[in-house]
Amino acid sequence: MQRYIITFSYDGSNYNGYQKQPKVKTIQEEIEKVLEKITKEKVNITAAGRTDAKVHALNQVAHFDLKKTMNENELQKALNSLLPKDIYIKQIGKVSNDFHARFSVIKKEYVYKINLGDYNPLEKNYIYQYNKELNIKNMKKASKYFVGKKDFTSFTSLDKEEKDKDCIRTIYKIKIENKKNILTITFVGDGFLRYMVRNIVGALIEVGENKKQQKDIQTILDKKDRTKAGKTASAEGLSLAKVFYK
Amino acid sequence: MQRYIITFSYDGSNYNGYQKQPKVKTIQEEIEKVLEKITKEKVNITAAGRTDAKVHALNQVAHFDLKKTMNENELQKALNSLLPKDIYIKQIGKVSNDFHARFSVIKKEYVYKINLGDYNPLEKNYIYQYNKELNIKNMKKASKYFVGKKDFTSFTSLDKEEKDKDCIRTIYKIKIENKKNILTITFVGDGFLRYMVRNIVGALIEVGENKKQQKDIQTILDKKDRTKAGKTASAEGLSLAKVFYK
Repeated sequence: MQRYIITFSYDGSNYNGYQKQPKVKTIQEEIEKVLEKITKEKVNITAAGRTDAKVHALNQVAHFDLKKTMNENELQKALNSLLPKDIYIKQIGKVSNDFHARFSVIKKEYVYKINLGDYNPLEKNYIYQYNKELNIKNMKKASKYFVGKKDFTSFTSLDKEEKDKDCIRTIYKIKIENKKNILTITFVGDGFLRYMVRNIVGALIEVGENKKQQKDIQTILDKKDRTKAGKTASAEGLSLAKVFYK
Repeated sequence: MQRYIITFSYDGSNYNGYQKQPKVKTIQEEIEKVLEKITKEKVNITAAGRTDAKVHALNQVAHFDLKKTMNENELQKALNSLLPKDIYIKQIGKVSNDFHARFSVIKKEYVYKINLGDYNPLEKNYIYQYNKELNIKNMKKASKYFVGKKDFTSFTSLDKEEKDKDCIRTIYKIKIENKKNILTITFVGDGFLRYMVRNIVGALIEVGENKKQQKDIQTILDKKDRTKAGKTASAEGLSLAKVFYK
C-alpha cells in the first residue's frame, strides 16, 4: 500500500458539500469515482475536513491509499483530465503511512468575503453580497473576543451529530481587511466546528450593524448555548484557504 | 414617450450572448421580459453593442422608451428583484430622445483576461486558462500594430453578415498588464467588429508563443483576409468593461 497526498481546489457552488452522502453530488464522490476509474481499485479519500454545500476550497488536502504504485505526475494529469472543471488537483505526492490528512492537521485557514460595494453578477457565487454599511472598526474589536482557546458551543450548528462533541477550539488569528469595498475576514485556528466560521461572521456582521455590542460576544460565548449566536452567514462567501501540517 | 438609459452588468456564462434570437436564452430577452412584466408595455431595448455567447459585461448600456413615466429608483429596484442573479441593473436614468445607446457611442473598452498561473476552478468562467509561458514583451510590441485607424477585415468573423460591412475601426489604446500571473489586455476603440477583440488576442497569444513575429501582424492586416488571422481566443476571458458617450 502506498499513501498519496493531494492538494486540490474546488468551486463548491454546484455541490452538496465535500463529504459523500447518498443521492447528492459531492466533491469527495467525484474525486473517488475518477480515482477508481484510473486505478481500477476501490479508493477512499480522507480530507483535512469537510466543507458545506456551496463552500469553496482553494487548498483542500486529502490522502488515499493505492495497492499499485503510480507516477504522481501521470496520476495528476489523468485526474485533472477526467474531473469536472470545478475541481482541480493542484499537487500530488507520496507520503508515509503515518500521515493522516485529518489527524495530522495543526491548523487551518478559512477566508470569508463580503461585498460592501455594488453587486457584481460575476462574483455571485464567491462573495456574500451585503448592501448596507458596516462599522468595520467595531467588528475588528469584537473579533478579538474569539481569539484564544475557547468553548465555541454557542457558535456551532444545531445538528444532532455536533451535540456531544467537544467544542473547545483555539483560534490563533482573525484578520479583517477592507479593500475596494471587499471585506475579507481570515480565520486561522487549530480546527473549526460545523458552521463555526459562518456563525462567527454572522455575529460580527451584527456588531457591524450596531445590533450587537462588542462585549455581547463574550456573553454569548459564556452562555454555551447554540441558540444565542444569531444568523449563520451564507455559504458562498466562505473558502477553505489553507491546511497546515507539521 | 420617455427614453430611459440603463447601465448593467452580466455574467454571460449561461447565455447565448446579448442579442435576442429565437429559441435561445439571451440577455436582451431576459431584460425585456422583466420590463414588460413591470410596465405592461411592449418594450424593445437597444444596447451599445452585442456581446457573444459566454462574454460578460461590467458596464453595458442600453436605452428604451416607455409610454408611462416611472420613478427611476423604483424601476431599478423592480428590475433587480425580478431579473435572474446573473444580470444586474447598476444605474437607470431619463435621457432625451436624441440619445441612442448604439449611435451615440464615442468609444468602448473591452478587457480580456488570461491566467498564466495555476488553474483556479473559481475563475473558470471569467478567465482564459493558458498553461504555458508567454513572451509578454513581444506581445506588447506586437499590440502597437493594431493601434490607430485600420482596416480590420482580417480580424473580424467569417460570418456572412459581417462580409459587406465597413471594417475600418480605430483602436485608441491596447494595454497589457501582468499582475500575479493574470494577464489583462485592455482595448479602447471607437467600435469593434464581431470577434475582433478575441481574434486580436488570438494573434497576440501566437506572438507570445513565438509562433508569429511582431511584424507578421502588419502583413495580416494588409492582406485584408479573414482566413489569415489564426485562432479566436475563447469567450470566457472577455468582458465589455465600459461604454463612453459625449
